[in-house]
Amino acid sequence: MLSSKKIAIVGSGNWGSTIAGHVGEKVLQLQDEYDQRIVMWCKEEILDDGSKLTEVINEKHENTKYLPNKILPENVLAVPDLDEAVKDADILIFVIPHQFVKQTCEELKSKVKQDAFAITLIKGFYVDEETNELLLVSEIIKSTLNIPCLSMMGANIAKEVADKVFCEATVGSRDNRHSEIVRQLIDRPYFRVRFYPDVEIIEILGALKNVIAMCAGFADGLKAGFNTRAAILRLGFREMINFCRLHAKESSPDIYLESCGIADLIASALGGRNYNGAKKMAETNRSLEDIEKEDLNGQLLQGPGTAKEAYTFLKGKNLLDQFPVFRDAYLICQGEVEPKQLLENLTHHPEYSEK
Amino acid sequence: MLSSKKIAIVGSGNWGSTIAGHVGEKVLQLQDEYDQRIVMWCKEEILDDGSKLTEVINEKHENTKYLPNKILPENVLAVPDLDEAVKDADILIFVIPHQFVKQTCEELKSKVKQDAFAITLIKGFYVDEETNELLLVSEIIKSTLNIPCLSMMGANIAKEVADKVFCEATVGSRDNRHSEIVRQLIDRPYFRVRFYPDVEIIEILGALKNVIAMCAGFADGLKAGFNTRAAILRLGFREMINFCRLHAKESSPDIYLESCGIADLIASALGGRNYNGAKKMAETNRSLEDIEKEDLNGQLLQGPGTAKEAYTFLKGKNLLDQFPVFRDAYLICQGEVEPKQLLENLTHHPEYSEK
Repeated sequence: MLSSKKIAIVGSGNWGSTIAGHVGEKVLQLQDEYDQRIVMWCKEEILDDGSKLTEVINEKHENTKYLPNKILPENVLAVPDLDEAVKDADILIFVIPHQFVKQTCEELKSKVKQDAFAITLIKGFYVDEETNELLLVSEIIKSTLNIPCLSMMGANIAKEVADKVFCEATVGSRDNRHSEIVRQLIDRPYFRVRFYPDVEIIEILGALKNVIAMCAGFADGLKAGFNTRAAILRLGFREMINFCRLHAKESSPDIYLESCGIADLIASALGGRNYNGAKKMAETNRSLEDIEKEDLNGQLLQGPGTAKEAYTFLKGKNLLDQFPVFRDAYLICQGEVEPKQLLENLTHHPEYSEK
Repeated sequence: MLSSKKIAIVGSGNWGSTIAGHVGEKVLQLQDEYDQRIVMWCKEEILDDGSKLTEVINEKHENTKYLPNKILPENVLAVPDLDEAVKDADILIFVIPHQFVKQTCEELKSKVKQDAFAITLIKGFYVDEETNELLLVSEIIKSTLNIPCLSMMGANIAKEVADKVFCEATVGSRDNRHSEIVRQLIDRPYFRVRFYPDVEIIEILGALKNVIAMCAGFADGLKAGFNTRAAILRLGFREMINFCRLHAKESSPDIYLESCGIADLIASALGGRNYNGAKKMAETNRSLEDIEKEDLNGQLLQGPGTAKEAYTFLKGKNLLDQFPVFRDAYLICQGEVEPKQLLENLTHHPEYSEK
């Protein structure tokens, strides 16, 4: 008899807890193949009432801090020790803030099973300081842990997934055996997944869409018309595609029309956090820091960080002129230009001199 | 000396009057090449106060009925007689409701200059009753008048264009001389055009987007989550592309990422008439007719008519199963299924069995 596969969730925030619950429910129907316990690494936190977050999760089956009012299945076990959490895991689902990826991977070095594989749900990338090339989370996981790494992105607002409201996702995988496992663990009638070999492009799209969603927010905050708002999303989307192509060639242009591409952008631009923060910036003329502090309860937006990385990368390649939406998004976050400049610069976007 | 080219606008509704004004302003800067008078065919109407619409337009330089509060340039001349309006025209811009296309073209037969060309801005198509093939407006114009016909579609809400708010459009043209003329007449810093040879695909997209915008409206009316709303737009968009491919092969998949494609869909789904009407249907459970009558002042939506044509075409090809979003859109308009069925059917969309 084959031993059943063990699953570890590396991370326990809003999305991490949601996916832990999602996979936790699913393995209950797959008893022969998967260890019934889902281990979720949870960096210990002391809550306001003095209790420990992991203990609360394991007793109440609820992540009261990051996913309140959603009951997790009882087979999700929060574990505060990283080594213990990933020990013996066959499948590692990474879902931590992207700034902790390098450090977490370093800590896990040589501690992960040789035939395990990972899948990243993390939005964000680095720019290598020496080479000025993109350094993706999947690439860091792969090279540090020496295991394959898949990616999964899409229009998946965590709260709605936790509520079992219909969504889709796109999985990047180059190995059919891995794809089959991900399909078993994730695909459900209300959470449909589709597969492409484009691990890296899927991941880049998931990060970049936060920047373009911010631009939609700037436009809406300035009360731009529907025509302009559609144009900014379209031109931003074209820049996202061109940006991906600087790093990898897609297996099919259809990848951009998947959930990880146009759908995630639309969902984020309909009312995601980055959109809302940017809209407020343009409406109130306050700084990004102010808005994060006062309106978002100290929560940092992902868009501005990604805008900075994208700007650094494009500047290093001397390509900022070809990516005015990304350029302006960063400069607006920095307070160096006004949001209205973004709209004015659309009128002479390089797309219009092409043909 | 070459004679200057004459321009006729066939139609004088909201969009027709807007384009007449737009082109009218532009020719003032192109005095050598274009006749300075823009003739706009305006089917005569007697207004509530007993005055004639053409006379009001020509005296007040305002289409008080269809584009109120926007002053048209004085070189736009409303002409009630169709023959007189198109006589000697070198460029005919068609912008009438699509149900009047056949009749209008028949009336114009043999009356148009041999070396003229047309451009259609009309959203909608027919299905040929005998062959069950699509019959496009550009094809009707071309075959009836025996002149080439271009198309122009995009995220161009008329009122915003009249207000000179930034937008884009996509022009279908297979002749560079025609493209150059359209560029001269239409392209401006706040109205940027891009060209593709795909006359027919551009036109089909412009019609179909109204159906998918309605589906977004149904979803929003049912308070579906952002994930679901993004999925419905994505799956609907994929069906739009597959639908186009039943009629013509695109010159490049990029055409779908132009203003006529994804941008027009987004703009329409952000708050166009078809979106709003459908949203109200799902919210109030009232019939389409009721809503058109009571909430839209008797104005008919374009989406339901296009949904019917699309349904007829797909049914004739035995392809309804491959296009569940289009199928359900029509059945909802007919009152045969409830809007929530559309959402339920997303969970087993044929996209998910493909790969």
